[in-house]
Amino acid sequence: MVSDASPLSTAQFAIEAAAILAFAISGLLEAARKKLDAVGVCIVVGLSAFGGGTLRDILLDRRPFFWVEHSVWLWVLLALSVLSMFFLQARHFALTERAMQWPDAIGLGLFTAGGTQLAIAASMPAIVAVLMGMVTAVFGGVLRDIVCNEIPQAFRDHRPYAVCSFAGGWVVVAADQLGLTGWVGLLAGASLATVLRGLALVFDWRLPQWRAD
Amino acid sequence: MVSDASPLSTAQFAIEAAAILAFAISGLLEAARKKLDAVGVCIVVGLSAFGGGTLRDILLDRRPFFWVEHSVWLWVLLALSVLSMFFLQARHFALTERAMQWPDAIGLGLFTAGGTQLAIAASMPAIVAVLMGMVTAVFGGVLRDIVCNEIPQAFRDHRPYAVCSFAGGWVVVAADQLGLTGWVGLLAGASLATVLRGLALVFDWRLPQWRAD
Amino acid sequence: MVSDASPLSTAQFAIEAAAILAFAISGLLEAARKKLDAVGVCIVVGLSAFGGGTLRDILLDRRPFFWVEHSVWLWVLLALSVLSMFFLQARHFALTERAMQWPDAIGLGLFTAGGTQLAIAASMPAIVAVLMGMVTAVFGGVLRDIVCNEIPQAFRDHRPYAVCSFAGGWVVVAADQLGLTGWVGLLAGASLATVLRGLALVFDWRLPQWRAD
Repeated sequence: MVSDASPLSTAQFAIEAAAILAFAISGLLEAARKKLDAVGVCIVVGLSAFGGGTLRDILLDRRPFFWVEHSVWLWVLLALSVLSMFFLQARHFALTERAMQWPDAIGLGLFTAGGTQLAIAASMPAIVAVLMGMVTAVFGGVLRDIVCNEIPQAFRDHRPYAVCSFAGGWVVVAADQLGLTGWVGLLAGASLATVLRGLALVFDWRLPQWRAD
Repeated sequence: MVSDASPLSTAQFAIEAAAILAFAISGLLEAARKKLDAVGVCIVVGLSAFGGGTLRDILLDRRPFFWVEHSVWLWVLLALSVLSMFFLQARHFALTERAMQWPDAIGLGLFTAGGTQLAIAASMPAIVAVLMGMVTAVFGGVLRDIVCNEIPQAFRDHRPYAVCSFAGGWVVVAADQLGLTGWVGLLAGASLATVLRGLALVFDWRLPQWRAD
Repeated sequence: MVSDASPLSTAQFAIEAAAILAFAISGLLEAARKKLDAVGVCIVVGLSAFGGGTLRDILLDRRPFFWVEHSVWLWVLLALSVLSMFFLQARHFALTERAMQWPDAIGLGLFTAGGTQLAIAASMPAIVAVLMGMVTAVFGGVLRDIVCNEIPQAFRDHRPYAVCSFAGGWVVVAADQLGLTGWVGLLAGASLATVLRGLALVFDWRLPQWRAD
């Protein structure tokens, strides 16, 4: 979530924006399925996009939140929510969801790596840093599902999602402990999480079942 | 939530107390419908009354909470919860709910305006300040519904509630940016939110439906 | 949650570990019943063990969290979760639950007394300190149930659980106000909560019903 004016910054901004939008749209679709009203749509969209990072910042006691520092994003999500209520139709849901799988995987990687680095910067132990990366990437969706009165999808669908985040987080931690510069760890961790998630989607990987089942 | 001894303070205290009680009673009724036990009733009552302000204060990193500074309120809500278990009967529910509509609308206005002003005082951007006002006024009920395993009513009943808060919040922000004293903004914003909510109740206004429906 | 090398520290550590594990296992069993996947199991186990203390620390604005300071516990719970997925079978559930009743009652006492003391140390009013003790002891299970999409058991099963915590918390507060040293209050409060919970289990006590029922 860096925003200085480096030569890379336009590409970087575009990737970051795609990731945030993918997360927001996951909220939009769930809100639509649950037939929430305009208020519910806006809140669930915002929670999906920024809930994970906000929870991480509360746990790390870190301020300002991303959406306070970049409050224009709240307007963007508000516009997205309201417009979609007029234009999104039920027959678009499945297509939209498929189209979002890759931006969502990129978001998983970016949010994981960014969250893990913030936790390392706050001197957290390695396992806690990895957990904070996972909270950043996964708990927006978890809060979305809790508000929509579902057991969180990330906790029950037996598909690798948080696990990809977990793996990517360890790469960020390892890069940090090897003394590599932040960008290397960020890219390596984000890439691993994104690629793993992509492979999981392509090859339809499953998490192991309970012996008890 | 001011408590100095100005000449207005008795009237002000009475209004504030009515608003808190209206929010608490919304929790009491939901707890009763869900047949929670005494512990559940107390927690849901407390969450309905103070959950929104507490969440706002966590987001703004602001202490002490209202219920820590005015901890006598915890005793009041405890007494309310326990007594109601002995005296409230199912046939009272509908009447109580109707009787609470206006105090609840007043609470919506007061909590909105107070929350927005606290966020302005914490140097939040305008849209964030309005959001914090809405969190203060609406998220007590949202937390109440989440704990009671329902999709929050404010997100699905297609009736203007959070939207009235949103409008009132912008009045507070506008008054602040015009340099008016705090009381003017507080009164104007609270009044607008309360009146809008009242009109929505009287004329049975609805939020727009999804095109997808 | 003291950890100096006093002569008592081994016994103390064993009791504390038993309490944490009992709370964790309550999460494990609920995750198993809901057929969560490996990620869900780990999160629900962690939430059951440390969710209450974490919520208390957020409310008191206190850092570092227990699981940040003692991050080895995260590895322990991770191992517990993963191993149990391979070895725990459905026919073990009822027995495990029974076996955990007493360690859980001990956890209720310890978490209550520790949480209440931390709140007293943070200069909270008496009723708030008792509430913080109850949050510490009870809200891990509450968060567990919310994530698993149930109305929290502590709020609806009409069995004394939070109430035992409440009673124990007042003993801690009273001991503090009498000027007794911390250990006395801790032991007295924890013992009362644990013994009350044990009696409630043995004699199958119930909380009063709503008059409305």
